[in-house]
Amino acid sequence: MRSFASDNNSGVHPLVLTALCEANSGHAIGYGDDPWTKEATQAFRREFGPDAEVFFVFLGTAANVLALNALTRPHECVICAQSAHINVDECGAPERFLGSKLLSFPAINGKLDVKDVESALHLLGNEHHAQPKTVSITQCTELGTLYQPREIRALADLAHANGMRLHMDGARIGNAAASLGQSLAQATRDLGVDVLSFGGTKNGMMYGEAVVFFRSELAAQFRYIRKQGMQLASKMRYVSAQFTAMLTNGLWRESAAQANSMAQLLARTVSSIPGVTVTRPVETNAVFARIPARAVHALQKRFFFYVWDPTPENTPEVRWMCSFDTTEDDVNAFAQALRDALK
Amino acid sequence: MRSFASDNNSGVHPLVLTALCEANSGHAIGYGDDPWTKEATQAFRREFGPDAEVFFVFLGTAANVLALNALTRPHECVICAQSAHINVDECGAPERFLGSKLLSFPAINGKLDVKDVESALHLLGNEHHAQPKTVSITQCTELGTLYQPREIRALADLAHANGMRLHMDGARIGNAAASLGQSLAQATRDLGVDVLSFGGTKNGMMYGEAVVFFRSELAAQFRYIRKQGMQLASKMRYVSAQFTAMLTNGLWRESAAQANSMAQLLARTVSSIPGVTVTRPVETNAVFARIPARAVHALQKRFFFYVWDPTPENTPEVRWMCSFDTTEDDVNAFAQALRDALK
Amino acid sequence: MRSFASDNNSGVHPLVLTALCEANSGHAIGYGDDPWTKEATQAFRREFGPDAEVFFVFLGTAANVLALNALTRPHECVICAQSAHINVDECGAPERFLGSKLLSFPAINGKLDVKDVESALHLLGNEHHAQPKTVSITQCTELGTLYQPREIRALADLAHANGMRLHMDGARIGNAAASLGQSLAQATRDLGVDVLSFGGTKNGMMYGEAVVFFRSELAAQFRYIRKQGMQLASKMRYVSAQFTAMLTNGLWRESAAQANSMAQLLARTVSSIPGVTVTRPVETNAVFARIPARAVHALQKRFFFYVWDPTPENTPEVRWMCSFDTTEDDVNAFAQALRDALK
Amino acid sequence: MRSFASDNNSGVHPLVLTALCEANSGHAIGYGDDPWTKEATQAFRREFGPDAEVFFVFLGTAANVLALNALTRPHECVICAQSAHINVDECGAPERFLGSKLLSFPAINGKLDVKDVESALHLLGNEHHAQPKTVSITQCTELGTLYQPREIRALADLAHANGMRLHMDGARIGNAAASLGQSLAQATRDLGVDVLSFGGTKNGMMYGEAVVFFRSELAAQFRYIRKQGMQLASKMRYVSAQFTAMLTNGLWRESAAQANSMAQLLARTVSSIPGVTVTRPVETNAVFARIPARAVHALQKRFFFYVWDPTPENTPEVRWMCSFDTTEDDVNAFAQALRDALK
Repeated sequence: MRSFASDNNSGVHPLVLTALCEANSGHAIGYGDDPWTKEATQAFRREFGPDAEVFFVFLGTAANVLALNALTRPHECVICAQSAHINVDECGAPERFLGSKLLSFPAINGKLDVKDVESALHLLGNEHHAQPKTVSITQCTELGTLYQPREIRALADLAHANGMRLHMDGARIGNAAASLGQSLAQATRDLGVDVLSFGGTKNGMMYGEAVVFFRSELAAQFRYIRKQGMQLASKMRYVSAQFTAMLTNGLWRESAAQANSMAQLLARTVSSIPGVTVTRPVETNAVFARIPARAVHALQKRFFFYVWDPTPENTPEVRWMCSFDTTEDDVNAFAQALRDALK
Repeated sequence: MRSFASDNNSGVHPLVLTALCEANSGHAIGYGDDPWTKEATQAFRREFGPDAEVFFVFLGTAANVLALNALTRPHECVICAQSAHINVDECGAPERFLGSKLLSFPAINGKLDVKDVESALHLLGNEHHAQPKTVSITQCTELGTLYQPREIRALADLAHANGMRLHMDGARIGNAAASLGQSLAQATRDLGVDVLSFGGTKNGMMYGEAVVFFRSELAAQFRYIRKQGMQLASKMRYVSAQFTAMLTNGLWRESAAQANSMAQLLARTVSSIPGVTVTRPVETNAVFARIPARAVHALQKRFFFYVWDPTPENTPEVRWMCSFDTTEDDVNAFAQALRDALK
Repeated sequence: MRSFASDNNSGVHPLVLTALCEANSGHAIGYGDDPWTKEATQAFRREFGPDAEVFFVFLGTAANVLALNALTRPHECVICAQSAHINVDECGAPERFLGSKLLSFPAINGKLDVKDVESALHLLGNEHHAQPKTVSITQCTELGTLYQPREIRALADLAHANGMRLHMDGARIGNAAASLGQSLAQATRDLGVDVLSFGGTKNGMMYGEAVVFFRSELAAQFRYIRKQGMQLASKMRYVSAQFTAMLTNGLWRESAAQANSMAQLLARTVSSIPGVTVTRPVETNAVFARIPARAVHALQKRFFFYVWDPTPENTPEVRWMCSFDTTEDDVNAFAQALRDALK
Repeated sequence: MRSFASDNNSGVHPLVLTALCEANSGHAIGYGDDPWTKEATQAFRREFGPDAEVFFVFLGTAANVLALNALTRPHECVICAQSAHINVDECGAPERFLGSKLLSFPAINGKLDVKDVESALHLLGNEHHAQPKTVSITQCTELGTLYQPREIRALADLAHANGMRLHMDGARIGNAAASLGQSLAQATRDLGVDVLSFGGTKNGMMYGEAVVFFRSELAAQFRYIRKQGMQLASKMRYVSAQFTAMLTNGLWRESAAQANSMAQLLARTVSSIPGVTVTRPVETNAVFARIPARAVHALQKRFFFYVWDPTPENTPEVRWMCSFDTTEDDVNAFAQALRDALK
């Protein structure tokens, strides 16, 4: 049975698993000095440009925290949305590893606004305040919504004009680019992003994320940061082989598009069910909805998922995520279970 | 071609790979609330006792650093050998994450002595000095040597008598237990070890290590430490499935014993080659030797390996490691290449 | 000329300076093992109870950060008001030293509400989120307002009922206690406060603050935290002598009451000036007001002070602070200068 | 009674106390924007050059840690002597605040050698090891010995040739310069020192140390580091006024020379007492000696001092320090007490 709790509940795409098995051939030097890692790096450079610097890590929290560490000293701060994963879902990992403050703003539909960043500029130069240095946005957002390209460009321009840099948490960048019809470079580097956390796990990999630098000088110390940050894989070929598979023949896009498409279907289907209100724009692979509280418990017995906002008590907001392997049958079965739960 | 550079140059044991493929079945709740993780936890408890607390992480550096973090506050210090992996090979990760000093001692053949720990006891209670709190030993050591059971017991007793705890870096605990003919519990818990970093990667896994607590009260905060330490795997079933395979039918012991056995063969074989001097006791899967400098370069062209001690220049000390998949043919081919390089 | 910019613009009270000079007698063992520190500790225990644990540090930021460190592990978080000094005016020192997240709430007139803390309770037990552990309030607040005793008691009870502790930033606790007619113990310990940052500098000392623990078990490691936190004074007698002076014959209360009284006079006086609007309750020694922007610059030429809120541009909010040595003549001169600036 | 336990057991020089009292005049803007701080900064620049950047902090541990923080990122390491104050007497403050490893070497008479630094150069560029970045020496050393100017120059040249910087812990730099007949610039900047911790407290100040940068680009972020490091004094004028006094009419040199001179007298006097062996070169204001254990306890009853090395038990090594206010009578009284204790 498929789950709609999170896109990390899915397994590994068959082509990725095949690549893992094929990489299990003989011995290879550890820590990235192997042919698989060279090949994966080249694949990334085909997408992002020949001067992109690429580093693999184990998981998304680390991709974000280490990328931010490359951009930010402890007395500097990171500007983000209150709903940002780095702000609410990483148990304080950024504060712990960076030693820095996160300066967060209430953000409609999870999107940071240029006005937010502008309001922090007065802190610059005042030693009593943590110094704004890095703007971090999530594309697509934790709420499944999308920044439009011009919105990202505006944030990048404002950041750069004030000596700051733009980091993108791209745990689901594939879903964003697929939805917007962009190439990966168009979705990131071309809009002024300086460093990208490129997600693999949620789009069908077993484990592994990449930190991609578009300005190589920012990457100068990153190999040390990664090692000290406990993210240097000894048998790195197994991360690399997965990424090569993802970047071959557009597997990343095909997988993301399927998840997005199923979210559209899910949203359309549940919207027609009385008592169900879709609460946010469905722009990628997430559907947020309010349903009667009694239906939550009944439905969770058959399909586990998370309550996003428990208030008001009688109509909480829930989150349903689609994955690369979600099918129309899965959606229909879920919708039927929801109808049953609402009876 | 097999490498003798490190046991992490080997690939994944076929049975582990099979377990990974079999785990790729349907959806599963993330972060460890899945059947595979339950099964692996039970397997660990069969080895270590029903009250052992087990947590999976991605890599050995993290297993060590997070285990130490569970035992040590920033103003406390960790006592270790100068040659300890935590002291020299983790790019300062312990100092960064713990905020603590490592108090290291020159240690013959990599083994910390009770006299070392005793010499630090006078620091206790003096606010000017970091307070000794955790003793960390590596079994087998980074030099391939073994602590005898009574040596570990003596360190544990001394530590406990002074309000301290004993951590074991068991990146190669399988090699140690196999060599000493111990069960995993006999090699660790039964000797007074409080927390164990249990290595998987070097013994044939793709990735994944475990932190095992033998006193459950020490584990109380560890799930938060792991998350904040950027080591909570979302698709944890794939780590868990590997560990279950390792703990089934003694795969861990069979793999470690093969590596140990090949190291014995390698040591015997190269000892008979003029110009080669084995420099340390060969007690597990490592062989250290001094060979003429000119032979190093010639041999490295065919088999990559590391120079351990570059002095004196003309006869540096090198390290050769055997793996679960090293064969007699590999050893013989390597020995022949060494003979050729010495001509 | 007296300044109204901050109560730290004032000098040292003559009785404190006398105490400093008298302490300059012969040699004394460093780091607190001296008669002056014993005497000051006894003075604190007369105020707060014989089991209070008292530690002196150099400055208020350190008192707060180290006190919070005694209560909070890195994966735990500190709940505070957005306007809290620890949140906005310490350049990220808490995040740096603690490695912890601050979870801040918009707080009317700078006062944290029980509802704020209640809204964070759902985070408890979820490893993805920093765990609420310490509630930190400032009395009097950074906005010069006061928590009523029952409000502090309610926060303490809620915290304690949920395994949390209550820290009070008492940089101006003297002003609060004087205004509320409380003893120091009534203002803190008797309301459930667990640890207090007791301010000296802003109330007429040269330097020096105290961290006072009302539950001695929380102080067990504090001497090491203070040393590692770079706050252990070698010539501690000079901090101690100042505190003894402050706690003798109610000097702390007399000084604070004078500052409070002058703030009342200032508020009354400027309220009658057309174009001036006092914006917040004047409950201690701070007066916040909105005045026309053009008057700000004119007045700042004669009396330096800070603009608190620059929006809206034409009527910014400014802050005026009174000190232990502010006189009626000072207030009248300032008010006259304000009238001149408004012409 | 004067103590020989530490130069921080002494009080405040009368001229410094006078300066403190004179600074207690009216109000002044906080945090260093005051005339006293301007004056003290100018005094430093007269000593060290017009482009020296000077920052005041409260204590020596902070001067060292924050100076090192300006030079060193977490994955980089600090090379120092094992006996360095930063390594043994700061309760792990450097590791905590920097997040960096200290790489320490056994150092004869407390002096780091170029060979020590050379032996660490092979770590450069290897991501598994903390990267050598900062060399830290103490002048005079914790053992009262002196680096000769050419020795410091050699360390500076080696450091700079390898992309590293040289920090000097000058807690007793006055004693060193006085002994060597150098100006302060000759003792530091002219020898290639990049950043200096300039000690005040041990040479007759009440509190306060300075961090002096000789390459202004290294100071660019220091005001934020100081604030986040909990060392920004609000009433800074009182630190500044003390430093101005110290740098006026060579008070620093006169005070240091007196302490040095009394140490010479003490060494000469006790050397002639049977059973007393002076163990280290007496080059500044410290005398180290071995005396029979029974004499230690008898003497400590009359003059408190520290046992430096408790082994061997029957003739431990003790440390006696002279201060700016130590007199010939003090030395003679102490020597007599020692003779009595030895009877």
